Amino acid sequence: MVKVLAINAGSSTLKWKLFEMPQETEIASGMVDRLGLPGSKFIVKFNGQKTKEDIDIPNQDVAVNLLLQRLSESGIIDDINEIKGVGHRVVAGGEFFKQSAEVTPENLEKILELADYAPLHNPNEAKGIEAFQKALPDAKEVAVFDTSFHTSMPNVNYLYSLPLDYYKEYGARKYGAHGTSHRYVSQRAAEILGVPLESQKMITMHLGSGASITAIKDGKSFDTSMGFTPLAGLTMSTRSGDIDASLVAYLMEKLNIQDINDMINILNQKSGLLGISGLSPDMRDLLKTREDRPESQLAIDIYVNRLIKYIGSYVAEMNGVDTLVFTAGTGEGSIPIRKMVVERLGFIGAKLDEEANNVEAEERIISTPDSKVKVLIVPTNEELMIVRDTVQLTGLV
Amino acid sequence: MVKVLAINAGSSTLKWKLFEMPQETEIASGMVDRLGLPGSKFIVKFNGQKTKEDIDIPNQDVAVNLLLQRLSESGIIDDINEIKGVGHRVVAGGEFFKQSAEVTPENLEKILELADYAPLHNPNEAKGIEAFQKALPDAKEVAVFDTSFHTSMPNVNYLYSLPLDYYKEYGARKYGAHGTSHRYVSQRAAEILGVPLESQKMITMHLGSGASITAIKDGKSFDTSMGFTPLAGLTMSTRSGDIDASLVAYLMEKLNIQDINDMINILNQKSGLLGISGLSPDMRDLLKTREDRPESQLAIDIYVNRLIKYIGSYVAEMNGVDTLVFTAGTGEGSIPIRKMVVERLGFIGAKLDEEANNVEAEERIISTPDSKVKVLIVPTNEELMIVRDTVQLTGLV
Repeated sequence: MVKVLAINAGSSTLKWKLFEMPQETEIASGMVDRLGLPGSKFIVKFNGQKTKEDIDIPNQDVAVNLLLQRLSESGIIDDINEIKGVGHRVVAGGEFFKQSAEVTPENLEKILELADYAPLHNPNEAKGIEAFQKALPDAKEVAVFDTSFHTSMPNVNYLYSLPLDYYKEYGARKYGAHGTSHRYVSQRAAEILGVPLESQKMITMHLGSGASITAIKDGKSFDTSMGFTPLAGLTMSTRSGDIDASLVAYLMEKLNIQDINDMINILNQKSGLLGISGLSPDMRDLLKTREDRPESQLAIDIYVNRLIKYIGSYVAEMNGVDTLVFTAGTGEGSIPIRKMVVERLGFIGAKLDEEANNVEAEERIISTPDSKVKVLIVPTNEELMIVRDTVQLTGLV
Repeated sequence: MVKVLAINAGSSTLKWKLFEMPQETEIASGMVDRLGLPGSKFIVKFNGQKTKEDIDIPNQDVAVNLLLQRLSESGIIDDINEIKGVGHRVVAGGEFFKQSAEVTPENLEKILELADYAPLHNPNEAKGIEAFQKALPDAKEVAVFDTSFHTSMPNVNYLYSLPLDYYKEYGARKYGAHGTSHRYVSQRAAEILGVPLESQKMITMHLGSGASITAIKDGKSFDTSMGFTPLAGLTMSTRSGDIDASLVAYLMEKLNIQDINDMINILNQKSGLLGISGLSPDMRDLLKTREDRPESQLAIDIYVNRLIKYIGSYVAEMNGVDTLVFTAGTGEGSIPIRKMVVERLGFIGAKLDEEANNVEAEERIISTPDSKVKVLIVPTNEELMIVRDTVQLTGLV
């Protein structure tokens, strides 16, 4: 029996969950918010209680030491050395990390090299790893990559129609993201259905504030909607998803924007549901206001339509589909969105069980028994996947 | 009985076809090549013969006068005043031109205003119109827009997930292209099948050096793959089609490109089949070399796969499909490409009649009698559509 931490280090946050393994019991969770910024906070959820502490947390080292101190002070653990493993989410693993990897000096260097593909993420994640290496020198550290699951895509699906040298020289290809989530929910869906994952043509929809959809064949990622970066694909909370690349140039001229990175920021932060609706990046707000605001309804309609088109393209690419899975915030929580999506899937014989669909964030089958395609809700659990990989790779349990 | 010209004025070409209407007989055709450039040429096809003349043609006025002079000198027509109508292809009609339009001073001004959406095309096309107005003051002039057919798309399909103001203020939306071709082949396919076009969910594939695919519902364009510009969508001869917009910024940095228009030019002119294969923009060259060059095979596979995904997305969007149509260079001419595509469409019950498919550029049904989806080859004829619109709109016949 060991304790293992799952860590998700963002640019100004450090989210954590503590598990007991191999039981997979979640003991406590929390986050450091506004890390390195004025007004930083330390938040812990334990035994159904949430405590929030205002405390200056200037960097990752301070954050990690504070976390370990509070965990032992509060009696969540007796001794920090009970923590035998730390699993870290890393956004970009490129083509190098085809699966999760124990952290070695070489691997840490590789993570930093891959910062080109995730300049806002990989460097912070590397800092998080280093902070834990210092604070818990005897614990095993493992990196779990958002992209690894998608390294199984065939080149036909990951290459753009660009000069091939751009791929060979600069790594310009589709990497995808949310891989840990797609991997988790696909495995779990197969378990719920009692069938081998390898036997299923599956489409998993991770619909959070970032959103991506993955085609899974032979148990492996076959195609996914995010691209070179997480900007591409579906309509998201604030990201545009797919657009005509010419619009980047056209809008820069019209908006009098000089730096292309400012334009890409607009596509990442001011577009999607927020941009169309002019109201909110949160699907719940749009559903609440759609009767009165045509722009809210429009944003919902575009969101659903884009999803339908991707489902269709993956059905075509796999020449069929057996199982659809909804996960993440909107996928787990939005009864009307799931209804709107499944009701448009008559062409693949999907039938919604409206009664079963009438639930939030619960594992269940929501298609009717005679539906040709099984449709499920599977709440995602990336942290569980991270600690599973951590104990498995390091032989901890 | 009248003679009507169909004109396609490009940046350095002026293509023409002369028809006798209402018989729809093609009398002669030809082009001015390298218009305004050194080494310009005047080419005529008449009575199965092709003649080529090296002659200095510095501008559109000279080109048009030369055309009319040669037509009468050579006895193709007796008098230039036999030409009662001239129909002009115009690339961008924006949201304003929902159908073809007789040229009035207001419409001509509008065509120039819309140059923002097609800076390389609309101004040249306007010059072509003006040159004919001068040379044939009594003839009726009609503008036929590449985009008009697509103005029936619902906003859910033509809007990007961008701030809505970019649409309202700057017209940032999907306009599509090849509309005249998609309109022609969809009408013709319905005629061949002996069914009303309105009764068909149809997908038309215009696969030329530019390529686009259109979903047609209730006889109208419902969605199409080209976007704000003809860069988006399918893998084309030299155009990338869809990419992650982030790659524009990433590649500019890697390639040390300062001007975004240079990057967009690469996406338009050095990408697609040419970029992947490193050999040729011509599908025939790739098919010839695919046994020896893995890059040729790769380019073909990516091309076909992208097409399959778009077919799937339109099947989903329309919740089914009745008819698929291949047209334009590769669509009409490539037996192996049609085979590769249709063989992957088992999920919609499409079955290829290999015998019937074994033909180039001929109107015919190439699906088996028991195929759930009808598949056709329909050679496109945009010029015929242009002269039809010209006589119909002006009451010429």
